[in-house]
Amino acid sequence: MVKIITAAYIMIGDEILSGRTKDENLNFLAENLTKIGINLKEVRIVPDDEQQIIEAIQNLKNKYNYIFTTGGIGPTHDDITADSIAKALNKKLVINQKAKEILINHYGKDNINEALLKMAMMPQKVKLLENPIGAAPSFMVENIIVMAGIPKMMKLMFNSSLEFLDFGDKILSKELKLNVTESIIAKDLSDLQNKFPDVTIGSYPFIGGTSIVFRSFSKEDLDKCYDIISDKKYEQ
Amino acid sequence: MVKIITAAYIMIGDEILSGRTKDENLNFLAENLTKIGINLKEVRIVPDDEQQIIEAIQNLKNKYNYIFTTGGIGPTHDDITADSIAKALNKKLVINQKAKEILINHYGKDNINEALLKMAMMPQKVKLLENPIGAAPSFMVENIIVMAGIPKMMKLMFNSSLEFLDFGDKILSKELKLNVTESIIAKDLSDLQNKFPDVTIGSYPFIGGTSIVFRSFSKEDLDKCYDIISDKKYEQ
Repeated sequence: MVKIITAAYIMIGDEILSGRTKDENLNFLAENLTKIGINLKEVRIVPDDEQQIIEAIQNLKNKYNYIFTTGGIGPTHDDITADSIAKALNKKLVINQKAKEILINHYGKDNINEALLKMAMMPQKVKLLENPIGAAPSFMVENIIVMAGIPKMMKLMFNSSLEFLDFGDKILSKELKLNVTESIIAKDLSDLQNKFPDVTIGSYPFIGGTSIVFRSFSKEDLDKCYDIISDKKYEQ
Repeated sequence: MVKIITAAYIMIGDEILSGRTKDENLNFLAENLTKIGINLKEVRIVPDDEQQIIEAIQNLKNKYNYIFTTGGIGPTHDDITADSIAKALNKKLVINQKAKEILINHYGKDNINEALLKMAMMPQKVKLLENPIGAAPSFMVENIIVMAGIPKMMKLMFNSSLEFLDFGDKILSKELKLNVTESIIAKDLSDLQNKFPDVTIGSYPFIGGTSIVFRSFSKEDLDKCYDIISDKKYEQ
């Protein structure tokens, strides 16, 4: 039996949608989820808008094993992720005592203020995710992993979430590069795809050729598909 | 009266979700839509999966003025965007005679094959979007602009879609960089946001300071907000 674990990713932030900020998190997350056998099935990017965050969480939460979010967990008024997620889950937003302690230890009793303590406001019953560089921890609540948008922090939080995640079987992949255009191999690929419905066959053109990516949980099927195409001698 | 035009973007492709390919289209589209007064409100990234494409189209089509899509319009079996969009709109997928002519002219009568002609299969009643480098045109159907995933082609198709689009008022923005951390200005920003609900105030930390971005259709409100914060003398 193949163990399939799925995820969705909700990226939160006006700055991505306005073009001000170039995303640096998607590819990291996609690549690293694939590596640990978690199948990223969908991504949504929404603004710092409570209604849109709630809708995305409620739409996706029961559809996939895990939901990852980035963005909107800082100390300012536009950081509404924790609050919106609490609302989406019908949970109270409370001060997390452990997170508060971490913040006070980091900033010192004299420097702590309301804005900084806002970062300890979390839904009830969370698991904290460490943030060695920024002090303010993020959290996992139910099946939702809530991370910072700043790429360096996000990576650390992702790593610290791993201990709470159930990994699935890894999808294996094999890539074949041919020096012919897609249209020459299209018919054969289509026939092969019909014969092997459990292998995902992707065809990606590049200048001067086509890269074919076979993906499957079965090494046997993967090798068969790869060999069938690589044995043919295509000519442009 | 402010003229607000909104859009969503559906990025289609297994290769983005598996991490194999790093997206290069989102930021270009976000930036260029902002420039012409089209407000990108939401992005979804879905795999080459008919059901997920149909769902995304049907969810978003009536919510925003325009839907942009990229990916899945090549000649191979995994290129299912045109077909899925036709299904989502309850339209027939037909051979577009003009697109067919363009393809035959480009590849020559002797080289044309079924796979290449697949790229001329489009929903009924489309506007063609030129593709000078790849020959195969893409299209706009109803309020949906369907473009290639290859960044170079996508840019050309986007440019050729502009003649069919209605531009809105541009959101103006002003950025203020301060050498203090977010938590020091958080309270003032929050108060200001409450006072100016029509200005979107974003706060983005960087190493050594905070960048505050004010966005609004009103230059007057923008200047007021900017001045209020820049007149304060914050100290770390």
